[in-house]
Amino acid sequence: MRTAVLSAGSWGTTFAKVLADNGHRTTLHARRERIAREINEEHSNGEYLPGVSLPALITATTDYREALDGAELVVLSVPSQSLRENLSEWRSALPPGATLVSLMKGIELGTTLRMSEVIAEVAGVEPGQIVVVSGPNLAPEIANRQPTATVVAGTDTARTTAVQDAISTDYFRPYTNTDVVGCELGGAVKNVIALAYGMLSGMGLGDNTKATLITRGLAETARLGAKLGADPLTFAGLAGLGDLVASCVSPIARNRTFGERLGRGESLAEAQAATKQTAEGVKSCRSVRDLAVANGVEMPITEQVERVCHEGLDPRKGVAALMSRETKPEIPG
Amino acid sequence: MRTAVLSAGSWGTTFAKVLADNGHRTTLHARRERIAREINEEHSNGEYLPGVSLPALITATTDYREALDGAELVVLSVPSQSLRENLSEWRSALPPGATLVSLMKGIELGTTLRMSEVIAEVAGVEPGQIVVVSGPNLAPEIANRQPTATVVAGTDTARTTAVQDAISTDYFRPYTNTDVVGCELGGAVKNVIALAYGMLSGMGLGDNTKATLITRGLAETARLGAKLGADPLTFAGLAGLGDLVASCVSPIARNRTFGERLGRGESLAEAQAATKQTAEGVKSCRSVRDLAVANGVEMPITEQVERVCHEGLDPRKGVAALMSRETKPEIPG
Repeated sequence: MRTAVLSAGSWGTTFAKVLADNGHRTTLHARRERIAREINEEHSNGEYLPGVSLPALITATTDYREALDGAELVVLSVPSQSLRENLSEWRSALPPGATLVSLMKGIELGTTLRMSEVIAEVAGVEPGQIVVVSGPNLAPEIANRQPTATVVAGTDTARTTAVQDAISTDYFRPYTNTDVVGCELGGAVKNVIALAYGMLSGMGLGDNTKATLITRGLAETARLGAKLGADPLTFAGLAGLGDLVASCVSPIARNRTFGERLGRGESLAEAQAATKQTAEGVKSCRSVRDLAVANGVEMPITEQVERVCHEGLDPRKGVAALMSRETKPEIPG
Repeated sequence: MRTAVLSAGSWGTTFAKVLADNGHRTTLHARRERIAREINEEHSNGEYLPGVSLPALITATTDYREALDGAELVVLSVPSQSLRENLSEWRSALPPGATLVSLMKGIELGTTLRMSEVIAEVAGVEPGQIVVVSGPNLAPEIANRQPTATVVAGTDTARTTAVQDAISTDYFRPYTNTDVVGCELGGAVKNVIALAYGMLSGMGLGDNTKATLITRGLAETARLGAKLGADPLTFAGLAGLGDLVASCVSPIARNRTFGERLGRGESLAEAQAATKQTAEGVKSCRSVRDLAVANGVEMPITEQVERVCHEGLDPRKGVAALMSRETKPEIPG
């Protein structure tokens, strides 16, 4: 199958490698000429996947028209707040009928739309044409063939199964799910909870506290999901619990390491300057909070993360606020 | 309130400290004279809680009759496979009407009874008289006042709330739950899953794999629970997910560190010799497996752990067996 992956960051390149390892000819779209040339000539992408050699079935181009030409599967992997702008540029070249695969985890600021909703709106396609891939999927580990499971979520069974088949390898194990809403919410909110986990870690708090954070973070994610029509079981699965645990416990995961800086007392500006980036959760905490408020859902951890990131709250005060809530039954009602 | 804690291991001593920090006069029962004397004279228990100073409201005795005399709350904290024998010795001295609190996590070998079932049988009391405390509760962290949440589960509301009140401090935050079965199963099976997590870690596998193990481990725990009448939401809570995560991610948790030895290639006998103990999960994997078989529930991770621990299976082959299962939808049905 002819496949295209846009763009050539760490997860996009890794996903292209999975497709190529499975025998699919894959074109990667890179913004920068230097990266496209390195992929074509040296079969590597040293900036995003150092030490990994890429299969010859992967070629790269800076021309999105060339990447998209004839593709039956189009994989979208850009920062979530850039999706609308990028896809607006690319949409005229999307092959009609191609399955659009979203690897992105976030909620759009301003609109509070999920990534598949942005794709449907900008590309002008039916929701069934879009398939979401989400799970405990730290890219460097997959690129190094560590055993990994993932969820392929879509409402069109044929397209969902086609994506499952296209990426099923001896190290990458996809499960199907029809709950697109739940899978996307799990992925978006986990960035926020992983930031909070990093803060606890940076403050020197222990594993009891961190395990409680993961548990209550998943509970507030599931509360939001229930309100938006997701299946509660999705949050107990790989795209909920699984992704959250991987993003929290991994010492290399970006939201966690960014949160650790905040927990050690760095300001947002200092952490951004030191890492030369902004963790996804820093933006998502606003859009997730907005979505929660709009739907009348209580998300105390997200609320405190938003206050730490955007209102200058001391993370220690945020934790104290969470711990001093009234004692009550664990399962409401 | 007069309280008694039997016995003076790491968790029992920590729980006594929580009660005493909250103003309750607490008597600890220690088997060994040396430990009782250290607690009484130096207010410490260096063998089990090094570096922690104990409140003066805690006294210790080697005489269980003295410990139990007049206690309104009797806390039981012994190795789960020793509960029947210990309680048979103590039962004549149990004050009638006292609330019996179980801190134990395990399933009895041979009978496949939960700890509260063993207590009810041996002490000859109604189930409502027993309250279970379970959650992400690594004892050394609580002894050092790290913020920790827990679940207090019981079917008698007055007794459950009384225990909640007795242990609610500014660092220990108890939530009530009526699902005793779910809380006890969560605690028993997590020892087995944490052993498996340790094996993956010892084999050098990555965080994607580990997060998948936690997710699928909780899924098989919930399957067993559903069959035995537990509330599925309990497994997404502190006594399910929370306890499991703490036991897996903590570098000091016993089942995990024991599993790491097996994952690095040590035999069961070598790991036992090196640690001078047997991790709880090594025993529980048998009784949990028996319970699963008796109830017709598929528990593939528990099954592989049992084979590694007791049938000499190479842990690498156990992992390969798990990864090669047929691909399917994530949520059955």
